[in-house]
Amino acid sequence: MSDTWSAFEARMNELSDLGGVMGLLGWDEQTMCPPGGRGARAHHGATIATIAHQRVVDPAYGEAIEAAGVLPDLTVAQQAMVREARRSRDKATKLPESFVRALAEQRSATNQAWEHARGTKSFADYQPALEKLMRLKVEEADHLKGEGTRYDALLDDFEPGMRLERLQPLLESLRDRLVPFAQRVLDAPQPDTSVLSQGFATADQYAFSLRVLSDLGFDFEHGRQDLSTHPFTGGTAPSDVRLTTRVWEDWLPACLYATVHECGHGMYEQGLPNHLAGTMLNQAAGMGIHESQSRFWENFVGRSLPFFRYLAPRMGALWPTESFSAEQLFGAANRVERSLIRVESDEATYNLHIIVRFTLEVAIVEGKLQAADLPEAWNEAYRTIVGVVAPSPKTGVLQDVHWSSGYFGYFPSYTVGNLYAASFAQCMLRDLPDFWGQVERGEFGAILGWLRTHVHQKGHLTDAPEIFRAVVGDRDPVEDLVAHLWTRQGAVYGVTRPR
Amino acid sequence: MSDTWSAFEARMNELSDLGGVMGLLGWDEQTMCPPGGRGARAHHGATIATIAHQRVVDPAYGEAIEAAGVLPDLTVAQQAMVREARRSRDKATKLPESFVRALAEQRSATNQAWEHARGTKSFADYQPALEKLMRLKVEEADHLKGEGTRYDALLDDFEPGMRLERLQPLLESLRDRLVPFAQRVLDAPQPDTSVLSQGFATADQYAFSLRVLSDLGFDFEHGRQDLSTHPFTGGTAPSDVRLTTRVWEDWLPACLYATVHECGHGMYEQGLPNHLAGTMLNQAAGMGIHESQSRFWENFVGRSLPFFRYLAPRMGALWPTESFSAEQLFGAANRVERSLIRVESDEATYNLHIIVRFTLEVAIVEGKLQAADLPEAWNEAYRTIVGVVAPSPKTGVLQDVHWSSGYFGYFPSYTVGNLYAASFAQCMLRDLPDFWGQVERGEFGAILGWLRTHVHQKGHLTDAPEIFRAVVGDRDPVEDLVAHLWTRQGAVYGVTRPR
Repeated sequence: MSDTWSAFEARMNELSDLGGVMGLLGWDEQTMCPPGGRGARAHHGATIATIAHQRVVDPAYGEAIEAAGVLPDLTVAQQAMVREARRSRDKATKLPESFVRALAEQRSATNQAWEHARGTKSFADYQPALEKLMRLKVEEADHLKGEGTRYDALLDDFEPGMRLERLQPLLESLRDRLVPFAQRVLDAPQPDTSVLSQGFATADQYAFSLRVLSDLGFDFEHGRQDLSTHPFTGGTAPSDVRLTTRVWEDWLPACLYATVHECGHGMYEQGLPNHLAGTMLNQAAGMGIHESQSRFWENFVGRSLPFFRYLAPRMGALWPTESFSAEQLFGAANRVERSLIRVESDEATYNLHIIVRFTLEVAIVEGKLQAADLPEAWNEAYRTIVGVVAPSPKTGVLQDVHWSSGYFGYFPSYTVGNLYAASFAQCMLRDLPDFWGQVERGEFGAILGWLRTHVHQKGHLTDAPEIFRAVVGDRDPVEDLVAHLWTRQGAVYGVTRPR
Repeated sequence: MSDTWSAFEARMNELSDLGGVMGLLGWDEQTMCPPGGRGARAHHGATIATIAHQRVVDPAYGEAIEAAGVLPDLTVAQQAMVREARRSRDKATKLPESFVRALAEQRSATNQAWEHARGTKSFADYQPALEKLMRLKVEEADHLKGEGTRYDALLDDFEPGMRLERLQPLLESLRDRLVPFAQRVLDAPQPDTSVLSQGFATADQYAFSLRVLSDLGFDFEHGRQDLSTHPFTGGTAPSDVRLTTRVWEDWLPACLYATVHECGHGMYEQGLPNHLAGTMLNQAAGMGIHESQSRFWENFVGRSLPFFRYLAPRMGALWPTESFSAEQLFGAANRVERSLIRVESDEATYNLHIIVRFTLEVAIVEGKLQAADLPEAWNEAYRTIVGVVAPSPKTGVLQDVHWSSGYFGYFPSYTVGNLYAASFAQCMLRDLPDFWGQVERGEFGAILGWLRTHVHQKGHLTDAPEIFRAVVGDRDPVEDLVAHLWTRQGAVYGVTRPR
């Protein structure tokens, strides 16, 4: 290995370590840190973030990247490392320091205004702060955008390699097929969900979640699960992945599906390519593909009838006085509703909530929608796409924290994840003829093995769209997702897809 | 605040934050990190340590310290900050980088040789590695020592402000008074310890330890307790102090005294002066004074008869089928033995174990004792000072990890802690006439308040010896400790101090 390459690699390793340290700080803050330690913790996090930023923008790092990039005979992986290092450094250096500070301050101010406005339920209390942040995000996009659109520039933080011109038709086509589907299902009688709220002790639910994690294939030698208010997947490295879950005693899915969802994220992290540890390729290829892993396990596997056939006897052994039939559980876990709140919505309508936000944020970033007009645009989009209108901004435009945190371009990843997952699932059914038999028997090894081979082991050698295409060929993910929903919810509601 | 001061302060705050981050990494490694994550964790820790070292030796930091040091009208605290910054930077810059690396590698190699030799029980397997490390430590001392001795240079890492010429007479005088005391006690009949091994469920013991922590005054808003193999006190800041304990089902003191001991350390940290957060004064003034806090609670309070009068009814409520009298517990917890292992020894003979090590390491650092001669010197010192000889090096010269880790000059802190604690206790008995009544009633607030005022709140404004003298005046800590032991063990063994 040449000295030139070693110099680049040492800097890359250092940044990877700083990322791992930030991962620990973040995980600890949400799980272990005593309340009175949060102030000091904020200083610790800011100091590490500042050091990492200084290292990225250091001109010597830029020279190290470029010197490494022109070395002869670089492997494909080495070329990809140079590409990722250059990409992240370009982004960091394109933004003037004074702008970065102003943006950070406005994010903090807008977040506070959002918290406050959720209390007063008044959009007017939020609007001025949001307006300022929107202006800064447009400015940020103008700094960052190369040949793409402003929206592309922001999207790139979450979906590297994705472009608005490819994303928009996908989501519009999904919308046009989901709206009539949801209508058809909602006209049918609703399943009974009482089986899920029989009352389950916290310790039992938690122990059960550990059992499920273990069965699915989460590796406790390289990870752990704890409790937190909002479930998440964090950790310090692919060899140290930390999931969290929560428990609601009167609603079994709160813990079970948080665990299965985060397990999907966690197994992706654990499956990233070991031999690229310490490099920027030992990371997810994007947020959508990350989400595809959690949604695949949570929805495609986790809400299937075979999965409930695996679960029901095990639940029955733990709670012998309750009653669980796989069919009841299957119906209850697949109930569809027109609901106001994205995070509580079902597999079918979830994507409609995302499409509302995507439509609005594209208009915002393109300067076609002002903060003052947002509540009306929100309600109008909800009326036509989801079919409900919020009685107050708190359950309407003020429900998500994303925009207040400056995360414009983030929402699509959730639906991209569902789309990727739908096509991955169809490929797996083709490659693993006994797929559902294995699920029913609680044998998840071959399924996880398929994901390891085709997704996890790819790391970030290429961007997610390329990983996806290499596996699924020319499958249409919109069709795969819609067909899956007709099959799944069709079985629950007794409806069939019109020809 | 001048720009000059702010520039210095910003660097000091950054170093404090890096220290906090290292604290979290260390705590997590011993409590939460999954086994497979340790490799990545080692990289994270090394990266942060390297960055911290780079920041300390950065010539610009040296200039910032000196520029701040000559500012007019510095407060006493500011002068102390400059003093501490200069002291730590001087140390870091006096050692050539190649030497620091060689020392780190030899520590690691000697540690491995130590682990191996404990398996083979052969000192010969350890000797060459120890010899190399001893040579490097002598070299380190030569780099660091100013006007003091070599031993002073190493001692200063643990006991800033202490000197061999003051320490040696203290420890020799303690030795000369402890040896006959131990002899007298050991000639008397031994108390029965079976009350402590009645069999106590892990969950009960742990819950009880939390109750005791809370009663003693540990602040869970700014701290927590977890389990680890070896109990320790860590954390990220005085506002986030993390204790660990352990549980042995058949030996109650393993958990109880680990908790009480670490609680003493933890309450010291929590009591450090808030208004100096982020500076080098918001830290312990030395290891001995830290140890004085843990030993005060563990031994002076925690093994007293009034403490068992507080404990016994609470233990009886938790374990109603067992039998606990305060008197039985008091006797059992104060049994004295000639034992081989320092960490399992009692309050009375513990210091003899330390004096053996101190005597030997002074000779090593002064070049008067070679590695080859160490086992014989160890056994001879044990024979004359403790009165026992180990049957094999594993329970003899190979029992501690300290020297293998390069910690020459560390052992005295344990006894310095006992000495400080003894005099603090006597001052408290004078200032708080109802001291033992409060202990018996489980009212520890006034006692903790005394320590807050006279010790914790001093932070590192001055070195420990000055803090100690300011509180105790001209009391003789050796006499205070020996008198305490005669009183305490005298009551258990029914012996009185000869006039």
